[in-house]
Amino acid sequence: MPEKNAQENCYVHGYSDRECERLADQAQTLTHLLHDDTHYPAGSLVLEAGCGIGAQTIILARNSPDAHITSIDISEDSLRRAEEKVRMEGITNVTFRQGDIFALPFETGSFDHIFVCFVLEHLTEPRRALEELRPLLKEGGTLTVIEGDHGSTFFHPENADARQAVGCLVVLQKKMGGNALIGRQLYPLVASAGYSDVRVSPRMVYVDSSRPGLVEGFTKLTFTTMVEGVTEEVQKQGLMTRDAWERGIAALNRCAEPDGVFCYTFFKATARK
Amino acid sequence: MPEKNAQENCYVHGYSDRECERLADQAQTLTHLLHDDTHYPAGSLVLEAGCGIGAQTIILARNSPDAHITSIDISEDSLRRAEEKVRMEGITNVTFRQGDIFALPFETGSFDHIFVCFVLEHLTEPRRALEELRPLLKEGGTLTVIEGDHGSTFFHPENADARQAVGCLVVLQKKMGGNALIGRQLYPLVASAGYSDVRVSPRMVYVDSSRPGLVEGFTKLTFTTMVEGVTEEVQKQGLMTRDAWERGIAALNRCAEPDGVFCYTFFKATARK
Repeated sequence: MPEKNAQENCYVHGYSDRECERLADQAQTLTHLLHDDTHYPAGSLVLEAGCGIGAQTIILARNSPDAHITSIDISEDSLRRAEEKVRMEGITNVTFRQGDIFALPFETGSFDHIFVCFVLEHLTEPRRALEELRPLLKEGGTLTVIEGDHGSTFFHPENADARQAVGCLVVLQKKMGGNALIGRQLYPLVASAGYSDVRVSPRMVYVDSSRPGLVEGFTKLTFTTMVEGVTEEVQKQGLMTRDAWERGIAALNRCAEPDGVFCYTFFKATARK
Repeated sequence: MPEKNAQENCYVHGYSDRECERLADQAQTLTHLLHDDTHYPAGSLVLEAGCGIGAQTIILARNSPDAHITSIDISEDSLRRAEEKVRMEGITNVTFRQGDIFALPFETGSFDHIFVCFVLEHLTEPRRALEELRPLLKEGGTLTVIEGDHGSTFFHPENADARQAVGCLVVLQKKMGGNALIGRQLYPLVASAGYSDVRVSPRMVYVDSSRPGLVEGFTKLTFTTMVEGVTEEVQKQGLMTRDAWERGIAALNRCAEPDGVFCYTFFKATARK
């Protein structure tokens, strides 16, 4: 299954334990901001396309406890972790299934709703993925997509090395066929994939020292940790000197000081078949 | 009054008729996003520090029709325009007075609330301005500050010339002693000026083609028009070549096409004396 392996290798953040922790921290901090307006009715059939290690799955399942959620991912390893997480949380309304988003083993019109979170950024053909998903929806069914956008990042104090370090993430993701600037593009992407009633709303994570949970949970543990996660890759590819990179990381951590500010925007799209 | 003249010359956008129209368009489009949570009680005394040509004054006065608003500005010319605008709107709860924000002719504790909108970005010493305003508040009185942040701008399709063009605004404002990145800094700025209970919230203007009013009113008439407004100054100072500048402007207008997206963030701070 070459596509599966390619897909796995392309997952820019890798699958280390530290990365799994990061994803869990991120999910917790961002739960309200990203998920509070997604509730599926009792009995509805929901497809989560690309569940990864289940960070979003448990939120989805808790917010719609009487919906039936089918979560698929291309990685067997991720699915095992997701299944374990869901079992430990005592969640019983999720079924896991291995599958490729471009060749899903479901009949036309199988689902009332489809949910796609932090997946399109990793795909070479995000529009085709949305096009492939559309027939799986019943008439009038809804699509929900959530993506980040690294180019939305800004902070205080302003720092050129830190900006360049964030830019390296964009470059690396692009080299692997993904798109770290996809959040801002959700409206044209979803609309051009044939969906109607497309609505996109930005969800900015705004962090200053009056919000210590976000300083820890987002500026440091989510964002700066994610940037640090590609240190070796950036060096290997010669995208920044080691010194400049370290100054950039220090500048990002500086934004977690009492007079620092950090801003990052996710985008959430909803649409109908 | 050299300071007054310096201040006037430093107003980066200038005072042309087109600029006045731009400010009026901007005010209308952004009214809800920026002002809907500012209502002052009947009988309260409100200082609007730096009212300019009154674009925000009429919104402020309408949202708090039974408050007494004193609007000051350093420019007699702006005050005349503001007074005319307020008179034409039939608004009667505003008093205008010429004054320098660094030497205001008011007693200690004169006001219940102070409102400052799109002013700090133009000042060399924004923190000192906030410090000077603080004694004018009664104990427990509130401060509200609204500022934009040009560095928060991002768009689709991504374009390097457009980004550089926006960067020119930041450079020009800095050369004139202002700060076009001040929005993100409101939290540390207000807190360090001695206020308490500082709360900052971002107000992103998100524009895609499902929001045609914003495509016209913000992407084109407010933002791109503002950038175009400094064309000659950018050329004079050699910040960009004419060709690159024109490509940048074209790329900003491109974001107003059906598959374009435009994002800009204002910040609103509230605090107590």
